[in-house]
Amino acid sequence: MGEIRPCVVAFSALMSPPSTAVVYDHHGPPDTVTKIIQLPPVEIKANDVCVKMLAAPINPSDINQIQGVYPVKPQLPTVGGREGAGVVHSVGSAIRDLSPGDLVMVSPPSAGTWQTHVVKDKVFWHKLDKDTPAEYAATVTINPLTALRMIEDFVDLKSGDAVVQNGATSMVGQCVIQLAKLRGIRTINIIRDRPGSDEAKDKLKKLGADEVYTESQLDVKNFKSLLGNVPEPALGFNCVGGNAASLVLKFLRQGGTMVTYGGMAKKPITVSTSSFIFKGLSLKGFYLQNWLDLDRNEECRKMIDYLLGLIREGKLTYDMELAPFSEFHTALDKSLGKLGSQRKQVIKFKF
Amino acid sequence: MGEIRPCVVAFSALMSPPSTAVVYDHHGPPDTVTKIIQLPPVEIKANDVCVKMLAAPINPSDINQIQGVYPVKPQLPTVGGREGAGVVHSVGSAIRDLSPGDLVMVSPPSAGTWQTHVVKDKVFWHKLDKDTPAEYAATVTINPLTALRMIEDFVDLKSGDAVVQNGATSMVGQCVIQLAKLRGIRTINIIRDRPGSDEAKDKLKKLGADEVYTESQLDVKNFKSLLGNVPEPALGFNCVGGNAASLVLKFLRQGGTMVTYGGMAKKPITVSTSSFIFKGLSLKGFYLQNWLDLDRNEECRKMIDYLLGLIREGKLTYDMELAPFSEFHTALDKSLGKLGSQRKQVIKFKF
Repeated sequence: MGEIRPCVVAFSALMSPPSTAVVYDHHGPPDTVTKIIQLPPVEIKANDVCVKMLAAPINPSDINQIQGVYPVKPQLPTVGGREGAGVVHSVGSAIRDLSPGDLVMVSPPSAGTWQTHVVKDKVFWHKLDKDTPAEYAATVTINPLTALRMIEDFVDLKSGDAVVQNGATSMVGQCVIQLAKLRGIRTINIIRDRPGSDEAKDKLKKLGADEVYTESQLDVKNFKSLLGNVPEPALGFNCVGGNAASLVLKFLRQGGTMVTYGGMAKKPITVSTSSFIFKGLSLKGFYLQNWLDLDRNEECRKMIDYLLGLIREGKLTYDMELAPFSEFHTALDKSLGKLGSQRKQVIKFKF
Repeated sequence: MGEIRPCVVAFSALMSPPSTAVVYDHHGPPDTVTKIIQLPPVEIKANDVCVKMLAAPINPSDINQIQGVYPVKPQLPTVGGREGAGVVHSVGSAIRDLSPGDLVMVSPPSAGTWQTHVVKDKVFWHKLDKDTPAEYAATVTINPLTALRMIEDFVDLKSGDAVVQNGATSMVGQCVIQLAKLRGIRTINIIRDRPGSDEAKDKLKKLGADEVYTESQLDVKNFKSLLGNVPEPALGFNCVGGNAASLVLKFLRQGGTMVTYGGMAKKPITVSTSSFIFKGLSLKGFYLQNWLDLDRNEECRKMIDYLLGLIREGKLTYDMELAPFSEFHTALDKSLGKLGSQRKQVIKFKF
């Protein structure tokens, strides 16, 4: 066998199956520039792993990348998507620690998960416990890890302290509530005014939210009474901008910090001079990409394993809408906010 | 003598001379609510020192206090002003380390310096080298100390690094330029568009400014070319707000910090989401009052002595307009921006 193998490799390289993929060759509106096409088989090199995908989410950063407004710009043409999970289909000749049938996720996130078969170097594949739900493995990095790092990295929070956040129904928002609660940290949550906001409130309270308010409920004189028995928060998270960011600032205690990690309202953050001088507020930003270098991969995978452990134990859960890959463009329209749905769209691939 | 003294104190308490003072008994427009009146002599208690004032500035925070919009609110009626320097006139019976004729300054700043004779407990008087110019002693705390702390407290600057500031012609701005230069730190300075801006530029360059631009000069496409051979600044100072704050943010390098210490334009600071997430900027505030507790007095006086040393050596200088006390209301009008003058008004008291 040892003598024959090199000949086999030389004359008939190991190839992936053809892959059905969401491809774009120029930047623009995601619903018009993306096409679903069949890609030919690619060679599986010695250190490559070919994975049959199970699930891959549509994240706002994926959309921004297609639009060309994200600082990380892939070479075009490219396949969309950066997070995903699947089952090993075949491995390159040098791969020893992964075998067909293993459950894996892309870690760190890396271009091209919106396709049926992904071939990547082994450094990008993280092997998972078999009983990990694929849709969670496919979504655990970009949103839950953001929530975890934001709770840990900015203010030294103690049990009993509080945080305030807007966009609380987002996937990050849901994770903030649960991860904070696990640490004994209280949460004040701000959501948009919209039909169904009462249901949204109930949902967040079931996840462990202490207080949930719509923006219009916060238009009151005796603002501090809204704290209930929650202490003034030392830390706030903003993923909206505009008025919703001002409300986070208003809740913060003297010397508090607001961390911006998104801008869903596409409006800037406006801050009074006195908020800085007399209230002593600090404003910072969080950019997960700084954690996603291959250099920090080991550290990141430890955190991901911690989060997936919580998920398997039922201590961390979040809303997703699973969409068959054949209905990708409907899911994309939902992610673009065209169909009213607010839930995270996760593509489910069929075996 | 030891037997007679207590009787003297008991029957004829040591009294100050009458004091001519700028007084207000309610908050409102400073030019209408302040009156110059003669105050009767006050008792000089055992630990008190009576000082014949030489100089006292009109600071923006004094004006805000009269308007009632400053967080530190004196009990009314009160005498205006918080900084000042003078010569000891007489001392209480327990005072050993100050004598008539000594040059002193109020430290920490404390209410009531706009009057000819100030009586305060000894903890508020800091004895100075005789050859210290009184108008500098009277102004060294609120502005130069702000410049010093802002350079030291936010970013670990090394020689060769750069800072950017708006409101560069202000007293703090002038001090930033000179204190930065002493540490080998380069400065980019932003000033308002106005008649005489060329002279203002020359003046700042003579103080050591590396680059000086008016706001309108910064309305260019190739912004980074304006850096000349100065590196992108890691730290910025904002005392204006509005567009002038946005320009400071624009100059900052990736991960830079902007510190707000004033809001002369009375406009908020507006920041894009991407400045926080992708450029990693931090925004903070500086409030000198946090340094001016009696608890930190020793630490503060060391810094003040350092600054006054630089002043005596000619290494730190700044623009002031000396106004006779008899023309207080003209000086106040100038401080309120009513007469076009931009220079710091310092009341000079006549002997």
